[in-house]
Amino acid sequence: MTLNLEIQQRKSAIQFLENNDKEELTTLVDSMNSKEIIHLMGHLKRDDQMKLLTMLTPEDAAEVIEEIPEAQAVDIIEDLTEKEAAAILNEMESDEQADIIRELDLEDASAILEEMDPEEAADVRMLMEYEDGTVGSLMRTEYFAFEEHLTVEEVTVELRRNSEEYAEYPLKYIFVVSSSSKLLGVLQMQELLLAKGKTLLSKLIFQEVAFVYPNSPAEELSTFFKENDYFGVPVVTEDKTLIGIALRRDTLEAESERLAQEHLETQGIVGGEELRTMPVLLRARRRLSWLSVNILLNIVAASVIAYHQDILSSVIALAVFLPIISDMSGCSGNQAVAVSMRELSIGVVKPAEVLRVWWQELSVGLINGLALGILIGAAAWLWKGNMVLGLVVGGALSVNTLVAVSIGGTVPLLLKGFNIDPALASGPILTTITDMFGFFLALTFASFMLVHLTGL
Amino acid sequence: MTLNLEIQQRKSAIQFLENNDKEELTTLVDSMNSKEIIHLMGHLKRDDQMKLLTMLTPEDAAEVIEEIPEAQAVDIIEDLTEKEAAAILNEMESDEQADIIRELDLEDASAILEEMDPEEAADVRMLMEYEDGTVGSLMRTEYFAFEEHLTVEEVTVELRRNSEEYAEYPLKYIFVVSSSSKLLGVLQMQELLLAKGKTLLSKLIFQEVAFVYPNSPAEELSTFFKENDYFGVPVVTEDKTLIGIALRRDTLEAESERLAQEHLETQGIVGGEELRTMPVLLRARRRLSWLSVNILLNIVAASVIAYHQDILSSVIALAVFLPIISDMSGCSGNQAVAVSMRELSIGVVKPAEVLRVWWQELSVGLINGLALGILIGAAAWLWKGNMVLGLVVGGALSVNTLVAVSIGGTVPLLLKGFNIDPALASGPILTTITDMFGFFLALTFASFMLVHLTGL
Repeated sequence: MTLNLEIQQRKSAIQFLENNDKEELTTLVDSMNSKEIIHLMGHLKRDDQMKLLTMLTPEDAAEVIEEIPEAQAVDIIEDLTEKEAAAILNEMESDEQADIIRELDLEDASAILEEMDPEEAADVRMLMEYEDGTVGSLMRTEYFAFEEHLTVEEVTVELRRNSEEYAEYPLKYIFVVSSSSKLLGVLQMQELLLAKGKTLLSKLIFQEVAFVYPNSPAEELSTFFKENDYFGVPVVTEDKTLIGIALRRDTLEAESERLAQEHLETQGIVGGEELRTMPVLLRARRRLSWLSVNILLNIVAASVIAYHQDILSSVIALAVFLPIISDMSGCSGNQAVAVSMRELSIGVVKPAEVLRVWWQELSVGLINGLALGILIGAAAWLWKGNMVLGLVVGGALSVNTLVAVSIGGTVPLLLKGFNIDPALASGPILTTITDMFGFFLALTFASFMLVHLTGL
Repeated sequence: MTLNLEIQQRKSAIQFLENNDKEELTTLVDSMNSKEIIHLMGHLKRDDQMKLLTMLTPEDAAEVIEEIPEAQAVDIIEDLTEKEAAAILNEMESDEQADIIRELDLEDASAILEEMDPEEAADVRMLMEYEDGTVGSLMRTEYFAFEEHLTVEEVTVELRRNSEEYAEYPLKYIFVVSSSSKLLGVLQMQELLLAKGKTLLSKLIFQEVAFVYPNSPAEELSTFFKENDYFGVPVVTEDKTLIGIALRRDTLEAESERLAQEHLETQGIVGGEELRTMPVLLRARRRLSWLSVNILLNIVAASVIAYHQDILSSVIALAVFLPIISDMSGCSGNQAVAVSMRELSIGVVKPAEVLRVWWQELSVGLINGLALGILIGAAAWLWKGNMVLGLVVGGALSVNTLVAVSIGGTVPLLLKGFNIDPALASGPILTTITDMFGFFLALTFASFMLVHLTGL
């Protein structure tokens, strides 16, 4: 709960920035853990964020950039000069470089790539070709690959010579490749220690090595790592050319990230990320793009009420219940949407199983529809002392709960089946249709019973 | 999209179950990947699920249980006999054993623990003491610990003797402890290979070993693994007694799981998990418990309309707009809730920063409130040719959007500050208050302008 430490850190940081005190600033940032860095960067003004990054060494700045949320990192990188941005990006891991550069506009991206270390830039260009959600978008290009004709001693010498660079490499595996970079096999680093110096790598390798393709969906990696207790798996092209490595850790992190984005999208945050440090106009515009679709759909749904205005003016009490029917149907339907999204994401259900899901929702909808209908019907009856009003309102909510869970359960599967992301669209589709049905049911039931209701 | 493989697998499985064909069933299950197992188990009847698990060897059954969603696993384990359940649980990893037994009722849990291997049961009892969301709930008890006075040779002999059991152990580290199990240091497995046989472990160890406490929040582990490139970290009590190991992988998986549950809860799935294979009554009851709170709150909100019924009967056109104002305010508010939940979860905002968040929401709410107000106001004006109606309706939505984002942005922080889980409660609180305000604003504005509106 207390903010004392964070406030103290921020005050110090701002003071060091003002005084151009590089040394103190570096000591401060080095002493902070990742939560504290995220918090500090989330509370500095844009100018101070940029100044902080340029005052630190590129290595330290890269660590800060890797800690903070990606959307924020992209914003800051965009505002730095190309030289500054390139110096920081040079120090980052290949998959994180590509994640950021993929989000920049083309012009910024190529200007920064021009300034980067040519080898790093080439890796990034390669990684950028893979779309979000593919194995390729998760892979790293830092891995050990040696040709089969090398000896243990030659490899050991090479490893020692570049030990500083290699220290950042994530893996304990060495991949063995042909002279044309085709993957031949794998060996564990410690096997090098035990083998005689003159042994050829080709004699040591384990040949039945698992691999994945860069264009496969990232989901396949999740499945792979559930099956296999490896830290990583090589990524190869169709002709088995080794191009990267995908780590279990990166796969799990990407899965968390995807879940979080999906959640934000179902709640109407277009783009799947918003931080309140982003510019107000950007935040307003993204939220509004979803809201304005919703308001149009709302007007369409409300036209059902407008069309039956004469019934409403005879039974004004109905106006009290229309928002309740709309809201409660939305609640029931959203529960069904959430369960479908969950079942899709863990794979217990496939888009083709729409009918089965519908059936399973109907049973729950029947029970809950009756319960809710009785509750609201009783409230209406008690309020106006008119049982027919209770029947009309309760009946409409009961039937509409069935409609809501049917639509809520099936729409995510249908959208997914047509390759449309269900996160953003399911909610608005659900509420529009259930509102229309709900208003229609209540007003139509009332029109049949008008003689018992007039004047309420 | 196609289900052919899964349908084929299910048909075969059902046939093998009917024929009691253990061998074929085992071959089938062994050939399936984790997605296929999840799908198969999600589509078998409860009896068949249980028969499948008892026909497989306990080792294979344990693998199936570890693949399927935890909520489903718990249901099935509950229905098996204690002996069957214990045999399967014996073969599982300690953290997964504890996850499942923690969810059983006390009676079932102790009956199964009685039947389990005593050593495994003791570990589970220890793990069960730690609440969900703590480091202890994530830790495993499978780790290598040897006393400092042992030699490399003695350790190597011991490792070889139990190599089969140890093969399942997740780590490449060896922890070195005192005779009273206090953690003294760590060494990497490969160091054993390079050291002379007579060397004492105490000579080899790295003493500045990081560690965590079992009662710390699991969040701390996430932070730890962001900072440190380790596969796992030892868990020790206050007096540095080694009691377990927490793995990066388990930490990341638990984080995904927590996100998914939080998402389900915000959509009104009490308990944070529902699979449509669960019993209908359980599913209906859990959903209804949240819906019935909502309907009561809805009735409270609608009482504002009932109270102003006289205004409504003079301006019946307003009834068309009340559900729109309610729904759109809910949408705007939920966007703010989602961003607050996200910022809380990544740590860019703390509960004490309510005022800052409020300020940041007001600016977005002002822009979007104006935009939505103009849209709905124009629609009302066009429909009835009455500008005052447009002003009343548009003004109410504009102001209420400000109310909605203020409440949506701040309520999750306030709840979190009072240690209440914001996932389940934020939505209902938001919609109730915004509905009441929205209805009140529209009806009050209308009452001031009644002379210009009567008869619409």
